[in-house]
Amino acid sequence: MANTLVFGHKNPDTDTIASAIAASYLLNKTGNDTEAVAQGTPNAETQFALDYFSVKAPRVITSADTSTVVLVDHNEEAQSIDNLADVTVEAIYDHHKFSFTNTTPLYITAKPWGSVATILYYEFKQADVTIPADIAGLMASAIISDTLLLKSPTTTTYDQPALEALAQIAGLEDYENYGLDLLKAGTDLSSRTDKELIDGDAKSFDMGGHQFRIGQVNTVDIDEVLSRQDGIQAAIQEENYEDFLFVITDILNSNSKALYFGDANQAIEGAFNGKLVDNIIDLPGVVSRKKQVVPPLEKQF
Amino acid sequence: MANTLVFGHKNPDTDTIASAIAASYLLNKTGNDTEAVAQGTPNAETQFALDYFSVKAPRVITSADTSTVVLVDHNEEAQSIDNLADVTVEAIYDHHKFSFTNTTPLYITAKPWGSVATILYYEFKQADVTIPADIAGLMASAIISDTLLLKSPTTTTYDQPALEALAQIAGLEDYENYGLDLLKAGTDLSSRTDKELIDGDAKSFDMGGHQFRIGQVNTVDIDEVLSRQDGIQAAIQEENYEDFLFVITDILNSNSKALYFGDANQAIEGAFNGKLVDNIIDLPGVVSRKKQVVPPLEKQF
Repeated sequence: MANTLVFGHKNPDTDTIASAIAASYLLNKTGNDTEAVAQGTPNAETQFALDYFSVKAPRVITSADTSTVVLVDHNEEAQSIDNLADVTVEAIYDHHKFSFTNTTPLYITAKPWGSVATILYYEFKQADVTIPADIAGLMASAIISDTLLLKSPTTTTYDQPALEALAQIAGLEDYENYGLDLLKAGTDLSSRTDKELIDGDAKSFDMGGHQFRIGQVNTVDIDEVLSRQDGIQAAIQEENYEDFLFVITDILNSNSKALYFGDANQAIEGAFNGKLVDNIIDLPGVVSRKKQVVPPLEKQF
Repeated sequence: MANTLVFGHKNPDTDTIASAIAASYLLNKTGNDTEAVAQGTPNAETQFALDYFSVKAPRVITSADTSTVVLVDHNEEAQSIDNLADVTVEAIYDHHKFSFTNTTPLYITAKPWGSVATILYYEFKQADVTIPADIAGLMASAIISDTLLLKSPTTTTYDQPALEALAQIAGLEDYENYGLDLLKAGTDLSSRTDKELIDGDAKSFDMGGHQFRIGQVNTVDIDEVLSRQDGIQAAIQEENYEDFLFVITDILNSNSKALYFGDANQAIEGAFNGKLVDNIIDLPGVVSRKKQVVPPLEKQF
């Protein structure tokens, strides 16, 4: 068994899975003994990438059975394993806002770039470690996923060169076509129950004391998702969430609408400068939870 | 005026001053507009290094008049400027334990190495920016200061190569001799009042809810410092600190004794596996507050 587990956030997405695999590989090539694991099974988009590059999904864990761990794509306890407080975090690779406390010095490489895979691409370069084609393919998929094919406002000048280099290593001749297939693979919501839809990649955020849960789905047809509003609302009530914002993002037109259930209507309307009608608010131009949903909401609390 | 202020912790030491100057220089060479400042005037050791390499001490600030800042050699609010909550932290370079929360993604480069100057040496290399001789001299001084000439247990395999390379750039032919002079410059305590002694490089730590203050002085004669025990104790009482641990470190023999004033005698004795006699506890082999004083204390709370 490896000495150190490497994993991303709960409700793993493509960046979290790809970055755990890539970081573990890099760490092992530089003298460490690690295993990439995940806090859940891959979503449909990630499974598409894993299948395409013939990589096995990481083992699923809910707590660490090692004394040391490496966090990728998250740093907040609420998004991490159950026994985070009992293990030593040796390193963090992340691109989110920070809320992290520990008692010993550690390695942190955080950059406000489009994906953790982008950060890791430059870490491989710096360490002069060759990226295997299959891992490069997953890392390219992660950049495509997190930046919506370089269209999200989270995209930085570092993401495109990394994506192009990784696509070349992976033998992806046309990464735009592959990218559209990948993103569409994540938008087939018909096979998912309402509960699966809201659990999707939802994350909890502590906003002025109360737990705010924010989910997001990508689609090519927002109305199709909204036609399931009653079922989604029932699923949220069943889970007893205080506040739930369910963001539905049109990946082709780079727009979103959100369903909101909770008692902070004013905060929602203030944050997004719009009106909630039948629990729905328009979010024109919004595609990034991290950059366009969480910060304006936090300002309200 | 610069867009962004770069500074280290309160009660600046040599690593904090040198790293602010070095990080500001590196950031300016890579397209930013920053100014190195400090939360206090240099101590005697730092002033020795500044004089030796003919560098002016950074401007002293207590709060930022810019909207963006870069933190070096610290990340905790208690050790930072008064209005940290009102400004945006764009980047952190640090080698301490972490307790940092913000609302936007940022750059963090943290490594558990001997000094922040060591981390910055490798950042200069990676960015392919030449280090000027005077800044290299300050960075070498910072490594010497934080690692007690590579003898502290905080020393890593990265510190010696960085120190040797920086000494060469700085034209320091014999860095060991220079290093002893530098460390001794910081041990002349006779000119400092009891209040100056305890304020020295003391830092506050939140331990299980109450504020624990830990100061440290380097000396070549522990007994000489202990002869001032009554005055030191009076100075601590005057400041109304709940808990104050004053660590006196013999830099030639790599040992310490500590004076403790507070109501957690048991925790102190448990942490250091010894007895408090007349408020004094032996700390054999202890030279590093970060590595040998704070972690065992935190385990008690």
